[in-house]
Amino acid sequence: MNRRLLALAGGVGGARLAHGLSSVCVPDQLSIVVNTGDDFEHLGLSICPDLDTVFYTLSGLADRARGWGRAEESWHFMDTLRSLGGEDWFNLGDRDLALHVLRSVHLRAGGTLEQFTARLGERMGIDCIIAPMSNDRVSTRIHTDQGELAFQDYFVRLRCEPPVRAIDYAGADRAQPSDRLIAALADPTLGAVVLCPSNPWLSIAPILALPAVAAWFDAPQRRVPVVAVSPIVGGAALKGPAAKIMVELGFAASVLGLSDYYGARVDGWVIDELDRQHAAALRDRGKSVMVSQTVMRTDEDRADLARTVIDFAERVQVRS
Amino acid sequence: MNRRLLALAGGVGGARLAHGLSSVCVPDQLSIVVNTGDDFEHLGLSICPDLDTVFYTLSGLADRARGWGRAEESWHFMDTLRSLGGEDWFNLGDRDLALHVLRSVHLRAGGTLEQFTARLGERMGIDCIIAPMSNDRVSTRIHTDQGELAFQDYFVRLRCEPPVRAIDYAGADRAQPSDRLIAALADPTLGAVVLCPSNPWLSIAPILALPAVAAWFDAPQRRVPVVAVSPIVGGAALKGPAAKIMVELGFAASVLGLSDYYGARVDGWVIDELDRQHAAALRDRGKSVMVSQTVMRTDEDRADLARTVIDFAERVQVRS
Repeated sequence: MNRRLLALAGGVGGARLAHGLSSVCVPDQLSIVVNTGDDFEHLGLSICPDLDTVFYTLSGLADRARGWGRAEESWHFMDTLRSLGGEDWFNLGDRDLALHVLRSVHLRAGGTLEQFTARLGERMGIDCIIAPMSNDRVSTRIHTDQGELAFQDYFVRLRCEPPVRAIDYAGADRAQPSDRLIAALADPTLGAVVLCPSNPWLSIAPILALPAVAAWFDAPQRRVPVVAVSPIVGGAALKGPAAKIMVELGFAASVLGLSDYYGARVDGWVIDELDRQHAAALRDRGKSVMVSQTVMRTDEDRADLARTVIDFAERVQVRS
Repeated sequence: MNRRLLALAGGVGGARLAHGLSSVCVPDQLSIVVNTGDDFEHLGLSICPDLDTVFYTLSGLADRARGWGRAEESWHFMDTLRSLGGEDWFNLGDRDLALHVLRSVHLRAGGTLEQFTARLGERMGIDCIIAPMSNDRVSTRIHTDQGELAFQDYFVRLRCEPPVRAIDYAGADRAQPSDRLIAALADPTLGAVVLCPSNPWLSIAPILALPAVAAWFDAPQRRVPVVAVSPIVGGAALKGPAAKIMVELGFAASVLGLSDYYGARVDGWVIDELDRQHAAALRDRGKSVMVSQTVMRTDEDRADLARTVIDFAERVQVRS
């Protein structure tokens, strides 16, 4: 594909496919727009977990085993914080801290998250575009049996244990997409939008909750196909609470449940070999389907899946 | 001495004598009030170099060789900050950062520096009182041939190289002493005030620049003696720019120059064996004098000097 690609991502799986896409695209062909619904303020620092995971993954700094933060990280700050009685439920590595401190300084001085993100990309030598979904504050709120929880409270402190009754994205109704997201969606050379294998409710939905983004997806005249890579493999999430949340919200924990959720917003599905039995049902719903190996263990897996997604996207048609 | 002691301190020499005093005093007998004129905001963090040096020194965590910060420190935050293009002229260790982050959170939430300092002392198991000189912002400004410089600009970035023409303490004229400093000065059981061997212009003068403190020192009816331990030994400062600044400001780089500067505010001088030749001149000026070994290399040196200072203070009279 010579045309431009827009990938929407959040979390580890999303960052891995974003990495694969960046490794097979030419410079500036790819825009990666990242969920900010998980962002929060902690210890006076502005923390953007999904953006950081994308940066660390694309620059090869991510810790592959732990799934978050940097490899070869040290924890002297955290140990000292704990010894001084500071809040220690959210881990901040010594190296990781530098990013949060610099971002907090930038934002407190009135700069935008998008500016900081662009500069960081240049500084780290990343040659695709990385942008937050919005410069406005959008906060994913989890409504559970234990009440309404801030995202990190639910995700880190309570380890996704409380059953989810509903999820909303506070502030999304008034939030503008970032300039780079607006530009990507309006770009006449845009060839496809890729929904990376990220948690639909926690990573992709906050982006789609921006009214201008929802309007693009739902426009009857949309001609740019949307291709989604399933984060559910064989009825389970590779990582994180996606399958648990699906069931709690009344969806089947399968690619069919995902398709129920996304509906007409997704034109083509990339599903794993393990889910081949669902291909016919998806096609019956009018979807294009690509069955592939989707589990990304190595950098080669990421690049292979990226090539599969790009080739597939060239053939997917928007059903009207 | 069974009566209470108030020590004014700042910098490494001051912290070492404060440590000695804390090791020979009974709990709560000693109040250590620390200079905050060097405090500044950096990377969004509230940094209090002199308070931190006192805490690290009294708790045995200070790096003895480097003279600032914590022993067994690591620098992963700083290395990463540098690689991301952040300001790196002021070194922040990974462990040290925890203190700055916690303090910044406390102050940003509307807490006072004095509250934070008191809690930190409890947390670190320190059984004397440690307090900032004030909760109000006082900023030591250095007027040099290169213009007016913020303290850390002069001290760290320019390494004290520009010749000093004058020093002022912006905000001091409107600043209130901290509650613990007010209480210590008003305490009827106060036996002596000790000026630790700290830089007079950079560490002690900001405290004395508080109008309420100046009034206490200069009161004709003052009965509590003030004892100073000379930071100048054999015509030189053990550490830092004290001797250089003295000369630049027109004082002799000797204990006599110090006495010229402090005038009637100091009643008794503890000077080093190397400065014995000045004892007679000080006595001619009406000062009590104790000649002692004042260089503190070991914890025993600190305790020995503390005992010497306390014994001496019991015998010093305020001249009226």
